[in-house]
Amino acid sequence: MTIELVTLSKSFGGEQRVYRHKSATLECEMTFGVFLPPAALEEKKRCPVLFFLSGLTCTHENFIQKSGFQQYAAKHNLIVVNPDTSPRGVNIAGQDDSYDFGSGAGFYVDAKLEPWSKHYKMYSYVTQELVDVVNANLPVVPGKRGIFGHSMGGHGALICALKNPGLYQSVSAFAPIANPTKTAWGEKALTGYIGPNPADWAEWDATSLVSQYESTPQELFIDQGAKDNFMNNLLPENLLSAAAGNDHIQTIYKLREGYDHSYFYIASFIAEHFAYHASLLKAA
Amino acid sequence: MTIELVTLSKSFGGEQRVYRHKSATLECEMTFGVFLPPAALEEKKRCPVLFFLSGLTCTHENFIQKSGFQQYAAKHNLIVVNPDTSPRGVNIAGQDDSYDFGSGAGFYVDAKLEPWSKHYKMYSYVTQELVDVVNANLPVVPGKRGIFGHSMGGHGALICALKNPGLYQSVSAFAPIANPTKTAWGEKALTGYIGPNPADWAEWDATSLVSQYESTPQELFIDQGAKDNFMNNLLPENLLSAAAGNDHIQTIYKLREGYDHSYFYIASFIAEHFAYHASLLKAA
Repeated sequence: MTIELVTLSKSFGGEQRVYRHKSATLECEMTFGVFLPPAALEEKKRCPVLFFLSGLTCTHENFIQKSGFQQYAAKHNLIVVNPDTSPRGVNIAGQDDSYDFGSGAGFYVDAKLEPWSKHYKMYSYVTQELVDVVNANLPVVPGKRGIFGHSMGGHGALICALKNPGLYQSVSAFAPIANPTKTAWGEKALTGYIGPNPADWAEWDATSLVSQYESTPQELFIDQGAKDNFMNNLLPENLLSAAAGNDHIQTIYKLREGYDHSYFYIASFIAEHFAYHASLLKAA
Repeated sequence: MTIELVTLSKSFGGEQRVYRHKSATLECEMTFGVFLPPAALEEKKRCPVLFFLSGLTCTHENFIQKSGFQQYAAKHNLIVVNPDTSPRGVNIAGQDDSYDFGSGAGFYVDAKLEPWSKHYKMYSYVTQELVDVVNANLPVVPGKRGIFGHSMGGHGALICALKNPGLYQSVSAFAPIANPTKTAWGEKALTGYIGPNPADWAEWDATSLVSQYESTPQELFIDQGAKDNFMNNLLPENLLSAAAGNDHIQTIYKLREGYDHSYFYIASFIAEHFAYHASLLKAA
């Protein structure tokens, strides 16, 4: 459970840090970002924690450098933790062959198939080990926890929340892969990590999980650029339709006219997501 | 004078664009960023333009992706143009040997020595050709023009302004190389581009230029992180001392406790720089 500081830069009165640790779940060394807001540093106050999951090809660095989130984490006194998108430094044949499978593309699932199943357990890493590591090492308020993400990471945030009612008190997603079993990215990833039978994929599909959800009522804030060049891989309407048929799921949907899939889009609306998470986490 | 659109993403209601063009001054193809605020797009309003010059190793991308400036350019209705840091795609022996000389390190001077003098004329490029290109292609208000930059680009902003009184109505710098003739970075660059005689360097040194400045009164807003790991290469106190002895130069100096040299520092204070430039450019 020990973590090692890699870098630290003051940012908006808080500190943007990068840590690394030896992950028992993934059996490799992993790197993640941590933002500590001024209140956590100066007043030594415990703060809620918000997890951000990144998209295809990203490391922990993209969100830290491109989203401009630190300003709003500082304003709302939220700790932000953002992990990498796959195991790293492992040696699996073919892991670097494509941008949408293997390195940088763990899809936040627990792989069932060899050779991926030894290391590629990003779902358990995010929902269990990383939560424990954060609880053990950072000044978080126990039980005040949110999750959000972008694209593949939006999918990750949704499935992590839907499969663990109560673990996160606030959930949002930018341009999530909302129905991966119906898309090229999703089919490739689920075939490779889970297996060839589509019946085995449903537990990793946010739209399927929304259809079947029967636990404590859950609100999902879905954000989408109307000019997103990857819309065929996202299919937010399918998730919205499923949610419309399930009283246990409420959705907030914002379609942003003219915006694409990039961090320019995320940065433009991240203030709204922080305000949303902060209001729910404060109330939790 | 024609420019070609490379990318366009909507950002904070405006558009972050990247253009390329064939530079006559540098004799190579150059890429630069352009942010158009909502007013320039929706109301087809002409807006003042603010030039940003980047530091060592940067391309046009770093500032666009990491500073979070778009929010404030949109708010203040400023067009922002940020060029690359050196000629590109030229073929000079040794150009890629070090991070602080050659590619990515043009230092915003006009080189006098072979083989650099054929292409490395970033000073003329920024103060003449790029100004003309912007005037010819973008909806700018003629004569309402500001300049700022970071590190090597802070040095660039200061020398471009000090050598051209009246060209820019507002000038600021984040952690500028304020007295390059007295630093390792500066000595290496000026020796290589200008020549071995330190007497020839003074016209490219902001502190020397401040000492000798006799034209219209000029205000300089200098910003500096107190925990900057490159302070030995920056020497802002030397410029402040020179300014204190010259009635034609006013300085605003902000020392930021705990901040380093990174884009995390720039992002934390860029709102202040936009407010500063906007107030001067509106009044100009």
